[in-house]
Amino acid sequence: MDEKLAKGLEGVVVAESTIGFIDGITGRLLYRGYNIHDLALHSNFEEICFLLLFEKLPNKKELDAFKKQLISKRKLPLQLIKMLKVFSNAPPMDALRSCVSLLSHFDAKANDNSREANMKKAIDLIAKFPTIVAFHHRLRKKQKLIQPNSKLSHAANFLFMLSGKLPDKWDEKAMDLDFVLTAEHGFNASTFAVRVTASTLSDIYSGVVSGIGTLKGPLHGGARSGTMRMLRKIGSVENVDAYLKQAFERKEKIMGWGHRVYKVMDPRAIEFKKFAREFSEAKRDTAWIEMLERIEQVLRQEQYFIERNLFPNVDFYPAVTYNLMKIPDDLSDSIFAIARISGWSAHFIEQQHDNRLIRPREDYEGKDHLLYIPIGERK
Amino acid sequence: MDEKLAKGLEGVVVAESTIGFIDGITGRLLYRGYNIHDLALHSNFEEICFLLLFEKLPNKKELDAFKKQLISKRKLPLQLIKMLKVFSNAPPMDALRSCVSLLSHFDAKANDNSREANMKKAIDLIAKFPTIVAFHHRLRKKQKLIQPNSKLSHAANFLFMLSGKLPDKWDEKAMDLDFVLTAEHGFNASTFAVRVTASTLSDIYSGVVSGIGTLKGPLHGGARSGTMRMLRKIGSVENVDAYLKQAFERKEKIMGWGHRVYKVMDPRAIEFKKFAREFSEAKRDTAWIEMLERIEQVLRQEQYFIERNLFPNVDFYPAVTYNLMKIPDDLSDSIFAIARISGWSAHFIEQQHDNRLIRPREDYEGKDHLLYIPIGERK
Repeated sequence: MDEKLAKGLEGVVVAESTIGFIDGITGRLLYRGYNIHDLALHSNFEEICFLLLFEKLPNKKELDAFKKQLISKRKLPLQLIKMLKVFSNAPPMDALRSCVSLLSHFDAKANDNSREANMKKAIDLIAKFPTIVAFHHRLRKKQKLIQPNSKLSHAANFLFMLSGKLPDKWDEKAMDLDFVLTAEHGFNASTFAVRVTASTLSDIYSGVVSGIGTLKGPLHGGARSGTMRMLRKIGSVENVDAYLKQAFERKEKIMGWGHRVYKVMDPRAIEFKKFAREFSEAKRDTAWIEMLERIEQVLRQEQYFIERNLFPNVDFYPAVTYNLMKIPDDLSDSIFAIARISGWSAHFIEQQHDNRLIRPREDYEGKDHLLYIPIGERK
Repeated sequence: MDEKLAKGLEGVVVAESTIGFIDGITGRLLYRGYNIHDLALHSNFEEICFLLLFEKLPNKKELDAFKKQLISKRKLPLQLIKMLKVFSNAPPMDALRSCVSLLSHFDAKANDNSREANMKKAIDLIAKFPTIVAFHHRLRKKQKLIQPNSKLSHAANFLFMLSGKLPDKWDEKAMDLDFVLTAEHGFNASTFAVRVTASTLSDIYSGVVSGIGTLKGPLHGGARSGTMRMLRKIGSVENVDAYLKQAFERKEKIMGWGHRVYKVMDPRAIEFKKFAREFSEAKRDTAWIEMLERIEQVLRQEQYFIERNLFPNVDFYPAVTYNLMKIPDDLSDSIFAIARISGWSAHFIEQQHDNRLIRPREDYEGKDHLLYIPIGERK
């Protein structure tokens, strides 16, 4: 009925934002005006969180205070842990969604929507996400919980709580870079869900819960674990060409390729690729990276991929570090969420600062003028 | 930077749908092709749920079977009730959001996204919403839980579980009509949130949780309780004119007026108004309806309201029946959710049937080309 149909809202501009900028044509990504390549090289996740929330890079004193604040909020309420035990067999993203919803019940200011209150809640959520993910994982594996270690960075502490072992510098760097590169990415589906929820002036827990529930769908998250599994299926670089040939014949999707916005290689993928190589060499195990590099080499010479501007996306090269760090497949979305909670929070606060209820229209293609027939006379 | 900004997506058509049709110019609302006035006159909530989910009105046999199915699924898992006790002091919508997220953990098929599985889950959620709302309410009031009564209709059973008293025919009709009129309403913010979550191929629990979190915002839900409170503040029809005069002077918002889509009186408001008068006369208490009728009479002669096509919306006249039935103010959003879960479910299933990831763009108005200065040199 309507010719202005913008299915999936592709290309529709829904709000102004100063948080993240994506130029899909030139492959440029900014967080608050800073180029992602600079941030990958110099920054760290705690600094990125500060930048996204406070709209500027912190000085030394501000960053130290911010880190302290994060560290002080890592612990979970005991009653939440008790409840988590009841549903410890739930898939990780389902458990995270429930935990965040439940967390609101331990916050007397859950429905205080002032900017100040929401900044506090954002920091609290950023601090607690790794604990929730790690605790849930250890509970489902019937392992003893590892309490957060206040001496460790956000990234190192997460790996520590997950495995019980102190990570080496390379593992810490891998995790931190991962958080930095996935912290924010404009109006992707989960962030947009957060903003739709924010736009009714709902609370930040509700917003973040919408984000988690949306991220968990396989069209959004999911591609990392898919790439990890694909690699294990292929086994070694010698099998890549045969695998791809078969995949083409069966018209199977190659995981971790293509992006709605980027028409060149995703700048985050460039960083992930570079790091995955360095990491593999440092760990003296280049089997995974060789497979991915070969896949890229083959696909980028395929007419189908060239014509459609398909390149490795943000979910392709992390499979190397994840496999090397032995991160369980089904935690990749939760780890994404640990990073993205920073962007979600910034977007929630920004949406409410200059709000307009997000309410589109449908193109009704259904029936009309149906006669209501009394039930006794219906066939 | 972008001139195609559609803030709040006003007027943007995001997907095709055959569920609900709103013509805001002529004031026509359809569910699956049936006019809301016919449905208000002849139908009931169980039939509406069937219509929304199965895309046709049921015959007698189908409706009986469907009702039985709903009745059989009203009970909550014992472990869920145990957890609910932990957060019984949470606001009703927060508690509902957590309960629905938790419910997924008791469903072995929570992440089965087949149409069949989702239809089952939809019916399960429709059946359980009243129980969750009533149980939470009684727990926070330290009252004994009232188990669902399989002899009662969806509406009557909800009122029974809430109050412990069998409702009379008028109360049952009031609740049922309320459910019928608020079951579905196109791409409103909460339904749209459900569809955004659905569009990543996430699960229906995640979708519904997004819907609840979005509905709870005061720009979406909230207006009913606001109208109820306004009425109690005014006290009697003699005070209406003075109250409104003062409200104009202070530029206060009048609750329950105006709608982004309707430029005439909302057809649901027409039904609610008619019924509120009948209900008040049957209950021999016309104080509330007289106040609202007088408010409408005054406002519809005000130039400001005439120029802007402002009319009573769906949240205005229900305040009469709610006040007369002594429904607690802060349950009005949860009651809305009890009805809307039917529409949400239909939209979730429809979105996934012909899916396109919902991912709009932002209009970046932030900084660019910022130089990353090492932390030691920052001011």
